[in-house]
Formats: sequence, structure tokens, C-alpha cells
Amino acid sequence: MKKLSFASDYMEGAHPAILQRLIETNMEKTEGYGTDEFSESARNKIRAACGASQADVYFLAGGTQTNAVIIDALLRTYQGVIAAKSGHINVHEAGAIEFGGHKILELEHNNGRISASNIERYIRGYWQDENHEHMVMPGMVYISQPTEYGTLYSLKELKEISRVCRENHIPLYLDGARLAYALACPENDVELKDLAALCDVFYIGGTKCGALYGEAVVIPEHGFVPHMLTIIKQHGALLAKGRIAGIQFDVLFSDGFYEKIGQTAIETADMIRRSLMEKGYQFAFHTPSNQIFVILDKDRAAVLSERIAMGFWENIDDLHAVFRIATSWATEKEDVRRLIDCL
Amino acid sequence: MKKLSFASDYMEGAHPAILQRLIETNMEKTEGYGTDEFSESARNKIRAACGASQADVYFLAGGTQTNAVIIDALLRTYQGVIAAKSGHINVHEAGAIEFGGHKILELEHNNGRISASNIERYIRGYWQDENHEHMVMPGMVYISQPTEYGTLYSLKELKEISRVCRENHIPLYLDGARLAYALACPENDVELKDLAALCDVFYIGGTKCGALYGEAVVIPEHGFVPHMLTIIKQHGALLAKGRIAGIQFDVLFSDGFYEKIGQTAIETADMIRRSLMEKGYQFAFHTPSNQIFVILDKDRAAVLSERIAMGFWENIDDLHAVFRIATSWATEKEDVRRLIDCL
Amino acid sequence: MKKLSFASDYMEGAHPAILQRLIETNMEKTEGYGTDEFSESARNKIRAACGASQADVYFLAGGTQTNAVIIDALLRTYQGVIAAKSGHINVHEAGAIEFGGHKILELEHNNGRISASNIERYIRGYWQDENHEHMVMPGMVYISQPTEYGTLYSLKELKEISRVCRENHIPLYLDGARLAYALACPENDVELKDLAALCDVFYIGGTKCGALYGEAVVIPEHGFVPHMLTIIKQHGALLAKGRIAGIQFDVLFSDGFYEKIGQTAIETADMIRRSLMEKGYQFAFHTPSNQIFVILDKDRAAVLSERIAMGFWENIDDLHAVFRIATSWATEKEDVRRLIDCL
Amino acid sequence: MKKLSFASDYMEGAHPAILQRLIETNMEKTEGYGTDEFSESARNKIRAACGASQADVYFLAGGTQTNAVIIDALLRTYQGVIAAKSGHINVHEAGAIEFGGHKILELEHNNGRISASNIERYIRGYWQDENHEHMVMPGMVYISQPTEYGTLYSLKELKEISRVCRENHIPLYLDGARLAYALACPENDVELKDLAALCDVFYIGGTKCGALYGEAVVIPEHGFVPHMLTIIKQHGALLAKGRIAGIQFDVLFSDGFYEKIGQTAIETADMIRRSLMEKGYQFAFHTPSNQIFVILDKDRAAVLSERIAMGFWENIDDLHAVFRIATSWATEKEDVRRLIDCL
Repeated sequence: MKKLSFASDYMEGAHPAILQRLIETNMEKTEGYGTDEFSESARNKIRAACGASQADVYFLAGGTQTNAVIIDALLRTYQGVIAAKSGHINVHEAGAIEFGGHKILELEHNNGRISASNIERYIRGYWQDENHEHMVMPGMVYISQPTEYGTLYSLKELKEISRVCRENHIPLYLDGARLAYALACPENDVELKDLAALCDVFYIGGTKCGALYGEAVVIPEHGFVPHMLTIIKQHGALLAKGRIAGIQFDVLFSDGFYEKIGQTAIETADMIRRSLMEKGYQFAFHTPSNQIFVILDKDRAAVLSERIAMGFWENIDDLHAVFRIATSWATEKEDVRRLIDCL
Repeated sequence: MKKLSFASDYMEGAHPAILQRLIETNMEKTEGYGTDEFSESARNKIRAACGASQADVYFLAGGTQTNAVIIDALLRTYQGVIAAKSGHINVHEAGAIEFGGHKILELEHNNGRISASNIERYIRGYWQDENHEHMVMPGMVYISQPTEYGTLYSLKELKEISRVCRENHIPLYLDGARLAYALACPENDVELKDLAALCDVFYIGGTKCGALYGEAVVIPEHGFVPHMLTIIKQHGALLAKGRIAGIQFDVLFSDGFYEKIGQTAIETADMIRRSLMEKGYQFAFHTPSNQIFVILDKDRAAVLSERIAMGFWENIDDLHAVFRIATSWATEKEDVRRLIDCL
Repeated sequence: MKKLSFASDYMEGAHPAILQRLIETNMEKTEGYGTDEFSESARNKIRAACGASQADVYFLAGGTQTNAVIIDALLRTYQGVIAAKSGHINVHEAGAIEFGGHKILELEHNNGRISASNIERYIRGYWQDENHEHMVMPGMVYISQPTEYGTLYSLKELKEISRVCRENHIPLYLDGARLAYALACPENDVELKDLAALCDVFYIGGTKCGALYGEAVVIPEHGFVPHMLTIIKQHGALLAKGRIAGIQFDVLFSDGFYEKIGQTAIETADMIRRSLMEKGYQFAFHTPSNQIFVILDKDRAAVLSERIAMGFWENIDDLHAVFRIATSWATEKEDVRRLIDCL
Repeated sequence: MKKLSFASDYMEGAHPAILQRLIETNMEKTEGYGTDEFSESARNKIRAACGASQADVYFLAGGTQTNAVIIDALLRTYQGVIAAKSGHINVHEAGAIEFGGHKILELEHNNGRISASNIERYIRGYWQDENHEHMVMPGMVYISQPTEYGTLYSLKELKEISRVCRENHIPLYLDGARLAYALACPENDVELKDLAALCDVFYIGGTKCGALYGEAVVIPEHGFVPHMLTIIKQHGALLAKGRIAGIQFDVLFSDGFYEKIGQTAIETADMIRRSLMEKGYQFAFHTPSNQIFVILDKDRAAVLSERIAMGFWENIDDLHAVFRIATSWATEKEDVRRLIDCL
């Protein structure tokens, strides 16, 4: 029997509706670099979904690239970015932010989340330090939704972070690599319109949410980042056939599709969570989204790994470790049942 | 009647065979970041086509990105890259190479080509200059095939450049964004196996040669660039769904497809060239590949531009300018006939 | 009465012997950029003092510059530097290391010191992590002697750190901004020759140890860093009148002067430490070198600060804070007595 | 008899008046990093000499460093600096500007000078190019006075360049490494006050004009470059003992000293020029300042080089080459007479 895969949410190709649209449009000739009508249509649908009719929208290829481009665009050379110690930019981007010359100013986190009060304390601490001119100036805040731990910021938390950023005149940037899975969570209360109202820049993930590749950067205030196309080009992030990303996001933002595409992932994750609880498994921490962090006896995990691909997260002690089970838009209920049977 | 487009070679989606294969494989689950079996299959076919069974092969998204990654990987921080003044990296990459900290050491060019003797003179001049420790050390050579002018290096020229590089212990890197169109030219005598034998790194263009996106970097000597995956990741160039590029190149390198995919472009370009000559048009310079640089009366060009999308190249004088006509794998003969009728 | 200054160790000009030598040599004509005979003489004396006859020695202007140059010279672009969270490069260099593209990989510290076992654990953890190719590779270790907390590594500790670095094939770099004050400590057992034997690169501080400016970089193994002059130049750190630094270090390394120049600082610091203890003051932690970290009642500190310039270190609680008292080669015993009277 | 040195203008230590002042102030204690009273006094004298009472003034150590810091401070990451192909930043700074991420946008030059019309053409050409978003945006202009060829911009030329910069909203930066020698030329009509009125940033050279080291950056409009101290620190260019540069510039700007210190150099250069002309030597080009570019028969030069240190400039043909003879504030008339006798 074929091995089950719950290793991550980018294991398949694209949602069939996306492939279908690529086929339909394939031989049409369009301009390059995102100036085509498909990309413009996608931009308009994203603007509408975000309630940000003047927003600048750009399509990039992947998450690390997007983070590097945005952070470099928002910071002056002598500024750093405040982020959770656990932030993707701080751990799993191979130094892409430092490659652009910027320090990541780490904050302690609560299962991936940082708090408005800690951000505020850091910024104040910087400016009150008599040696602050010898230190890296905090120039923006980076958060992710869902976080790298699969947790969510509540609307209240996000509003507080946004307020601190605005009071201190530094932009707030939100990494939405898995945003569709946040939007599909019953306990989520942060909508796209909230992101547009509270963030200065955010990106809507495509790669992990049904696209072949692609992330949509949204800058609610038109012109907030001047010369963005040149910045994207300089980072090697401007795709000649920009339409391919445009077409994909045009599909994802037709008829509220993006807000629904994560539902299967959440439903199947909930099935797995319930089953794990019933069977007496412990979780490393609670997550409402498509990632589950379960504690397994290592011997048991070794046996399971022959039948199920999961992600190793971290060791707890000599006998136990945390493993990540991830669902996606493409997860099939039959596979979930087989997974539950194995556990 | 619909406007004709001869503006560039990335105006359509992908070759239908590629789309077909993406559909067939869509719901299979694979590992990410290029570790999947499709990518491995593509790598093996590329190795075979290049006669380089040990080659390291990586798939990136676009040309500027690939140039920035490779140049950064090959140079030490204090070194620069020798290139034609007209080289894409020097003109149309928005400073991506300098963003990585490297100076481009310009050489004069002959319609896009640089000569072995000029390269040698530059390198010798550097080392003989008593102030050379205050200057940027030449650390590699960048050329493109076809060049930005649509011209080709002959095998003899390429061998000479390769010899100079090896004698001076600096790597030779070839940008093959439009390589399929060189390979399909009757007057071309440089095959993939020659590139693998003569270059230290080169890339095989996908974006402009039938793929949705993607470029295949070939490093003939295994391990020549250590830790390449981390370098790619650091540049934001590592795609999570690596398989998408892998599948595309797997198609392009099945049954010698890549070496044939440019034929339509060359045939149709030849039709246009012959017709232009018969009608008495002048060319800015001769090109054997899929780009034609024709001199037009500006008034005439203004009229034509309503029916034909062409690329503006440069002004000659107040009355005349050079325009670029490009064909591609997707150019239809019917469109060529209509173009010729207009001219 | 004039305010007493114990704020830092760079409050005066240069040791009079240095000024005297600058006057004597002033009108001699020499070559630039460190190729002069004074610089060569200084290099030879430093080689002798370090027992490293083949060492490469370079003179730079200041500490942050030296750290940025060396770290950039030792790392490949995708590597980071392991350092104490409290390391000068991590806190008080305004992002100079990140400006060069490198991440600082923080370790917890013990009053400024990091341990061989923590370094080893970090390096092993990196290579054992299955995602390590997505992470910043540890490429060198940075330590300082004395540390930013005025503490010292023992010879045993330094040997262990050196062993870990060599077993893992990554260079060890030691920042000796205040090295003269370590060398003059009775409890110090690390000599210049030990540094040359155990470090791959280290620098001998001049600015804080009696020079107008200048730091001497020592690379015990000749040729260990190729093209160093170009790297220095690229960082804007190559002084045209290289002789000025050369002359200063020639004086500092004549007749073992450098190993003695810190004695006054240590003697006076000891006087202050003893007096503070007798008067019942608490220290934040013990230091054997020229910096004393004393806990003061904030109200008392406010009064004292009118008569004594000290450095604010950090708050303990609402009522107490840590203050730094620093002595130097130029500290006068009369000032120390006056300080003690005030306390 | 001792070999004569006319190789450059940084062959001696400092002007005796500077050394004298360093001695007088040596044991005074001051704050670090340029916050001391000597530096403040120097800043005020420079402001007065420049007729720019609100100017921000900073002291750095050397020319390459200053250029790298200023250019990095003035440009956004995606911008480049327009400069003469012969500019010091483009040839002899080992890629320091590219290290900061910026491309140098070369203009053809007339013995080191670039023209307002060429600058304007370049800027217009950029904005008119339909692909300009893929190109490096011109973000500032760099010129030097005197130029690397020892030539001078006239006030009229400088006004035109300044006008073009202001009309195009890009800053003008002037490198005055040898500014004292321009100010002392009879044919110079550009005063310090003109520089302050026409440039956005310029620097007044100390290293080549009588100081041990040091360059004074002048930013006529207060606050034009925010957070400059942090930028300087990030570049490793902030000297702890800032007073040493401050004291030197305080001397150089007392009683109009800086405007006179180059006179000896110009008088002696004029003596040499007249003598060379009388003896029938040819010049590569005319220079009014302290550098003379004379054409010598190579055999003759080989003989001369045993008695006179000159700088090799460039080959003309197999038999002839250009050599540079430089005078300085320290050049003695006796040495000039001996030089003339040799020629």
C-alpha cells in the first residue's frame, strides 16, 4: 500500500481549477512582467477581497523571496526587522535577510506569536538606550499568520500590534504563506480586510494554498513603496511570464475561492486532532489550523514513519519527540481514515 | 483584426506537451525543494544530453535570479565578473549583481560578443597593474548564447574563451536564456556537450523556450560549487514545489525535445529576414537566431506599431531607429505571412 | 574641581612615547598603504612577541571596522558567525556584520564568555538538523578577550574552544580591543603566544590601549586569508598613511611595552575594587580587568554623576542599576583617591 | 644621495602645527565618538569657512571609506551613482561601492571631468527608456575636485552640474581628497562657500592635505542625511577617539590655514612644470594643481627612477609612457631643484 503523506502542504501540483485555467489561456499572447490583463484582473479581485481599492499588488514566486524583497524594500540600510525568534526569516531562510544587509531583532515568542507589549518595549528600549546610535534601529515588524507553529493572532492582538507600529512610525508586515488555512479556521477572526486595514504590507500565500507557485504581495496604500518593480527586479524576483502567477491568483480570487480553499485542510486536521485526543496522544501545543504538533514515543514514530510521512519538529527527551502532521487543500478523507487507523 | 505580436519570445504560456504532463502528474504527492523523482528524472536527462553524467543540476525560476545566484556562488566578495558592456547583467537586471556586492568589469563587444583576446588582455592588465590590489579582481567570465544581440559564439570562439579562462584559473559561465534558439540555428556549431566541456557553469533557458518558467543550471563538475542549495535558498530562489520546474524540464529533455523546440522560431525568423531583404530593408546587424534587428523609418514604424507589436531597440538618427522582431517556439506561419504583408 | 572621568579607556590621546616617535619620524618620506619600513618593523616585533614568525599582520583603524573586515574575509557568503549574545558585534556595531551579509549566530553567555561545549552543540545541531541546508551555516567563532563584561577566558577554556573549532574546521577569531588589560591581569594565563597558537585570527587593540587609533590584526598562518589587502581596501579600511599606525605599534611592541602598558589600569582598578568592597558595595559580577561593574542605588548614582563620569550599564530594578567604572593606561592615582573619597 | 620622492602627497606624517596641537591636548580627557569639544570647535570653524552655519560635519578616516559611507547614505538600494569612468570610486576602491550594493553608472570624461550635459542626457535617457524599471536608477552624481587627473571644475561647470542635479532631484556629492590643492591654484575659482552652496555633500580631504589621517564630510543642509552616525558606525567608520580627527581639522581650519596649506605644492609644481616645458617635455594633458602628468621615454624613465620616485600612470606606446609627479604641502624647494637638475 502506498505510503501516506502528511509531511507538508506543498506535496501536490495545483488545484485543478488553476490548471484548467492555464490550459484555457495558454496560447493567448500577452505582455510580460505582470503587465498582462490576467494579472490585472487578479489584482483587481484581490483589491476587492481586501477592501483596498487602491492597493498595489505584486506577484512573486516564493515565500523566502517575498520576505527578502519586502523587508529590503521597507528598511533603510541601517535598520533591522523585529521578529519572533521562531520566525521563518530567522530560522529557515538561510540568511536571506542578512544577505540584504539587515539584522533580525529577535523577540521571545509564545508558540510563534509575539506581543504588542514586547514590540513596544523593544522599540522604547532602543530609543532610550544612550548608545542607541551604535545599535541596529528597529525599522519594521514581521509577523506570520498562521505562525510557524500553526497558531493564529486574534484580531485584538493584531490591532494592538498595528497600533504599536503606527504609534512608532514603523511598518507592519505579515507573512501569509499559509493564509488560506488561517482564513478557513472557525476560531479565526482576522479577515483579509482586517489585514489590509492593519498591515502596511502583507502577502497572500499561493504555493502552499493551491497554486503551482506564487505569492501575492498586497500594499494597501498605493505608492507606499516607490519603485517596487525595480526592487523586485533587482532581487531576481520579477518573472518574465508574469501572467502565470496572475492567472493562478485570478482563479484563487474568483468567487471567494481563496477563503474556501483551506476548508478541507481544516476539516481533516480537526478529524485527526479529535482522533489523537481520543487515543490519548499529547500535543506539544494547541493549533487551530492545518498543522498538528503531536508528541510521539520515538520507537512508535520509527514504526509509523514507514507508513506515514510526517515532519520531525524537535526532541523532547531521549524517548519522546514532537512530530508535525500537516493537511492541505488536497488532503483526501480516505487518507485521513487510513492515518487514524495507523495511529 | 487582432494585433500581431512579435515583441518577444515569452508571450504565451507553455508548450502544450508541458501542460499535458503537469496535468498527468498533478495529484501525485512528492517531496519538496527539488528532491522529488520528476526533478531527478529531468536532471538525469539533462546530464545525458550534455554528456556530463556527474553534473550537478539545479532548477531556478528566472534568468536574472539565475545570474545573480551563480555569480554570487562563483565569486569571492572582492572579485568582479568580466562581461560585455551589452550583457544582460550589466544593463537590464536592475543592479542584481551589484546587490550581491560584485562589480561588472565591462568589455567592449562585437554585437554582443566578447573576444578571448580582450578577456586575456583584461586579466593580464589587472595583474600587471602595480595598483591591482586596489582594484576589483576579475574572478569569472560571463557570456550569453545567443547574445543579447541575437548573435552566436562559434565553437572556435568558445574554445578560445574557455582556454583563456582555464589558463587564468577563473570560471566561465554561460547564460543560455534563449539557448534553444541557438541550438536550432543551422549556422550554430556549439552543442550542449560542448557547453558542458567548455563552461564551468551554464544555464539552459526554459522561460523563453517553452516552459511556464524555469532555468536549468548545469555544473558539469560535481561539487564544483559546494553548498549550492543553501546559496540558492539564501537568494530566495529555492522553490518549495521544485517538482513543477522538474516536470517541465523532464518534458523538454525527453527525446531531444529541447534541441528541436526552437526550430519553428528559426524557420519563421528566416522567412521574415528573407522577406525584409527582398523588400530592401536594412538590418542593424546580422543575426542567425530568433531575433531580427531591422532599421525602420520612424514614421513607418509608428504606423506599423498599430498592427504589430515589436520591440524598440535604439535610435539611429532623428528619422530612423532599430526595432526588434522576435519569433518563438509558438510563432504561427499564418502570423508570419500577415507580418510580411504589413511590412 | 574638575569632574573625574572613569567612563571609558579611550578618553585621552596617545601614550607620550607614541607621540614622541611620531614627532621624530614626521618629515621622513615613506611609501603608503603599510608598505613602509615603520610598519614592517612593527610587524616584525609583533611576530616576535607572538612567537609567530610567519604571521601576516595588518593595521586597521578601529574595532568595529576590524571585526567587519575579518568576519567578511573568513566567511563564505552563506555562513554566519557564532558569538555570545552579548558580543560587541551583536550589540554595539550598528549591524556592521549584517551589512556584510552575515548572520550572527547567538549563544547564551556567562558574563560575556561562551563555552566550548555550547559551541560544539550548536555546530553539531546545525549539521544534524535535516533542514540545515535552509539554515545559516556556522562558519567561524568570535570571542573577545577581555569580554565585553571585563571577564577573561582562561587558557584551558581557550584551548577547548580552539579544539572544537579545529575539529569542526571553522576558524576561531578573537577580538582583543582591550587585550593589554587582559595581559596585565595577575589572574590572566593567556599570553600573546597562546593566542597565536590557538586562534586563526586575532587583533591586538591599540585605540583603547594607548594609541591615537589602530588595531593590529594577526593571522598566524601566512596566507591563511588570501588577498587580504584588497579585502581591507574594499571595506574602506586601508589607510593611505599606513605608517602612522605602523609607528604606533612599533612603539607599543618595543621592549615588551604592550604587555606592560595595562598595568596602571589594573592596579588602579584593583584599588577601586578593594575600596568598594570595604565600603560594602555589591558587584554585578566579578571582573579581574580594567572594568568594574558596581551596583548603585540610583539616587546615589545621580549625585555621584555630578562629580564622576561613569558608564550606565543596565537597570536591576526601580531602585538599583549597574554602573561601569573603567580605568586605563592613563589613570592617575590621585584621581583614584578622589574617586574613592566620593564613593 | 637620498632618493627624491615625488610619488604622491601622503609620503610624510602631519603638518608640524597639527602634531604640536596633539601634544598640547594629549592628556585632556574627553568624550568619545566625536562628541568632544575639539571636534565641535573644528565643526564650527568648518561651518564658518563654508558659510554654512547649519551644516552637519562628520570626520572619517580615509577617502575610500568616506565615499562608501556617503554613497550608501545617499542612495536607495536600487539606485546607482553617476561618475566619470576614471573616477576613484570606479577604478581604485576595490569595489567598495559595489560592496555596498550600488552600481557605478559610468560617463565618459574629459581628463577626469564629466559635463552637465552628459549627466543630463544620462538621466533623461534612463527615464525615457521604456525598460528603465529593469535598469539601475541614477540616484546621485559623484565628482572630484581636483579630479583624479589633477584637473579642476570651473565654478561655471560646477554650477551647471549642480543645476542639473537639482532639476532632477538627485544629490551632488564632491570628493575633495586633494581639495587644498585645488583651493591653492591661481586658476581655481571654486571656493569652499561655492561647494557648500552647490553640493549636497562634499568632503574636505585631510590625509593628503597635511593631516595624519582624516576627511571632513560637510552636509550643508542640517538633517539632509538622517541617522548619519549610525550609518558611519555600521560602516566601521566611527572612530572611538574622534577627537584626534577633530583636533587636526581644528588646526587646519584655524585662521584660514586649509586654504593656504596647498600653496607650497602649487608653487613647486609650477616650478617643475615650467622647467619641463623649457626642456621640451610633453605633457599628457594640462593640470593646474599639484599633479603633473609628463610623457617620458621609457628608457629615460628607467634611469630616472633610480633617483626619483614617480608614479607610473599609463603606457602610450612601446617607447613612451606617462608618469605622475606629485608635490605636497611638505615639498622642499631644494628637492625641486634637485629634481629639475635630474630631468
